[in-house]
This record gives sequence, structure tokens and C-alpha cells, in this order.
Amino acid sequence: MKKIAALCILLLMVGSMAFTAPKKSSSSNPPKSDVAILVIDMQNDFVLPGAVLCVAGAQPTIPTIQDLIKYGRSQNWPIIYIIREHRPTGVDVDAPRIPLFTDGKPGYCVPGTKGCEIVKGLEPEEGDIIVSKRRNSGFFQTELDMILRRMGVKTVILSGTQYPNCVRGTAADAMSYDYNTVICTDACSAKTKEVADANIFDMKNMGITCIPLAEVKKTKF
Amino acid sequence: MKKIAALCILLLMVGSMAFTAPKKSSSSNPPKSDVAILVIDMQNDFVLPGAVLCVAGAQPTIPTIQDLIKYGRSQNWPIIYIIREHRPTGVDVDAPRIPLFTDGKPGYCVPGTKGCEIVKGLEPEEGDIIVSKRRNSGFFQTELDMILRRMGVKTVILSGTQYPNCVRGTAADAMSYDYNTVICTDACSAKTKEVADANIFDMKNMGITCIPLAEVKKTKF
Repeated sequence: MKKIAALCILLLMVGSMAFTAPKKSSSSNPPKSDVAILVIDMQNDFVLPGAVLCVAGAQPTIPTIQDLIKYGRSQNWPIIYIIREHRPTGVDVDAPRIPLFTDGKPGYCVPGTKGCEIVKGLEPEEGDIIVSKRRNSGFFQTELDMILRRMGVKTVILSGTQYPNCVRGTAADAMSYDYNTVICTDACSAKTKEVADANIFDMKNMGITCIPLAEVKKTKF
Repeated sequence: MKKIAALCILLLMVGSMAFTAPKKSSSSNPPKSDVAILVIDMQNDFVLPGAVLCVAGAQPTIPTIQDLIKYGRSQNWPIIYIIREHRPTGVDVDAPRIPLFTDGKPGYCVPGTKGCEIVKGLEPEEGDIIVSKRRNSGFFQTELDMILRRMGVKTVILSGTQYPNCVRGTAADAMSYDYNTVICTDACSAKTKEVADANIFDMKNMGITCIPLAEVKKTKF
């Protein structure tokens, strides 16, 4: 009986340890910031001409995204790259895209392939954050929201591709999670100008701020 | 010591009860179904002419939604009404819509008001399911996904208003959650035909099925 009692006490002690408050870190990790820049899906498979899911407008936005990132660094805003990654079998891909992974087709954004890499000119630097996702929205079953909360972010500025899918999906969820949501219009892209314009129209009506980089630089967030 | 041991054993027994498998129900509750119909935001505040957030195209879709619901009942498909509900203070509303709840303004979709009620002609029947939401997507922090899983639903057919916000937001999440996602095009609405068409274009490109009711009736889901 004494042995059982000792075992029980041990179990209760171990259990209670799980509820002990963690030690507070003396330094802020990661650094706090009111604003974060999101760079969405700027991977070879979406950006390079001839790529499996090439978005025609994506490559021309690279210089603007570079400029946005440079500006963000000057403001000490974290740069968060959101990327697609899928298993070679496609078991984790959006259902309508399963055919891209079957009948010997190579799929897209498979880690280890060239197509999955972030496009040349936008390579992340040390200290940047990379969030891997499986769906259009960067928030869908990822750690993006918890990272933004930890950093105290209130405003997210979105760049990348493409307007109707991953940009809008991420923007809509950012708004739902109560972030002040800003689309840097000339740093985002679509297959056609008509698609970009229709999405900007809808997002503005939702209450999402849609402004070009020049205006981002003039705004106090 | 014996008392402590007895207490510990009691605690361990109570703890283990939480992990006991639940008894299997002899009847299926709720009934299983491969298909469910979603009726989104068909509330007076969105549908009635002159309402605070009236969507011009919503009222004319009522007969088609009635027809869709009737067809769904004939197939024994569950009918799920997704509605907006907000506290009178607006503390739970999308941030860009906070101004609709301030400076004495009455807000919208506040339970207990006429505007929050489902529009005449589409009143839920006994056994229908109502899911209350705070954001555009019917999946965002609601029990919609868990209810659909419990019922074994594989295909969701969407109706309601409006295309760019709550219909598309719910459709995008349905696809992300791996449901076969169908927009019943003439049972959904927007402020203008251009907005509806642009959203249908984008959703088709995502792999979402967009078909009118006549085709829904001909399709084996």
C-alpha cells in the first residue's frame, strides 16, 4: 500500500509540473513588432515562366517585393515567408489539384525540388521566419497566428502571389483573426489584370486596405 | 498515509474514467448523409430592401433556395442554416464593421432583432441545423466542420449571400477542409452581376464546382 501511495504521489507531482508557469524570458524572443510583412508563395513553381503553376504577373513583382522587404527591414518589421509544401504523393494537396500528382506527374512545391524553392532575388535572410502551409490561406492549420500573436503584431502587410487564391485567402483569414490587414497592391500579382482588379475591389469592400508600396511607406501603422 | 493513498487511487480512477470509450449509440444521431445543403446569411439584415447591409441580389434568390431546400429534403440531405450573430456592443464583429455598432448605430444581426431573423419563406424546419458565426466563413471558429464530419458529409452545396464574402469564404474553407464543394450559382447572390461573375470565375479556377440548380438536380454526388 505504501508503494502505491508513493507512486500516486509521484504521479500527482509529475501532473502538477505540467501546470507550472514557464519562466519568463529576460529577453524578448522573438522581437516584438506592431507590423509584419508576409511574402506569399513566391516559389519557382508559381513564379518562373513555364512553371507548372506559373502566375503570369508574379515575376514582374519581384523588384517591388524586394523594395517592400528592404523597407520592412529598415523599420525592424519581421519578414515572414509563407510557402506551399506538399509531399511527393500529393496526399496533403487541395483535392482539386490531386491530378497534378497522379499518373506520373511530378506535382508542385515538393520540398527538395527546384520548384519548391523561393525565387531568386527573394531569398530569406537569417532571422526571417518561414511558415509552411498546405492550403491557400497562410493561416489554415499553420502556426502563423500563434507566431504573430507572440510578436504582438497588429498589422500584416501582404505581398506575393496570387490575388484570388493565396493572397486573398490569407487576407480574409487575417481580417477574421482581427489583424489590421493591408494588401501592398503592386507587390501582389495574378494571372491577369482583370483578376487582380476584381479581387482588390472585393477586398476593399470587406474593409481590407489595398494600397501600393509608395503609400505603405507613407503610412504610420 | 493510507488516507492519501486512498485519495490518490480515487483520483487515478476518476482520471481513467475520462479515457473510457463512450458507448456506441444504437441509432445514428445525427443521420448520416454524403451531401449537405448550406444556406448562408439569408437574414433580413442582408436580404430585405433598405436593410443595413442589403445585398441587392439576395431577395430574388429566395424561390431558387426554396426549390434547392425542397430538393435536398427529397434526397434526405441535411439543411444547415449558417447565420451571422453579433452582440449589441459589436465586440465580436469584423474590425472594419465596428463603426456600424458605434455612435448609437444599431449594428446588424443582433439576436432578438427583426434583422437577425432568417428571411420569410426560408424559415428552418424542425430537424434543420443552425450554425451561428461571427465572420464571413461559416467554418471560422464554429462547429460546422465537426457537425459535417459527424454526419459523414463529403459534398457541401452552398446557397445564400453574398458571393465575395460569406459564400466565397465558406466555400474556400470547405475546399481547404477537403469537402467536395459545390456552389449552386442561381441560389447565391451579390450586389451586382459583375461581382458574382468575377467570384464564380475565381472559384472555378480554384477547383470549386459552380453549377445552377437544374444541374445540381441532375448530378449524382
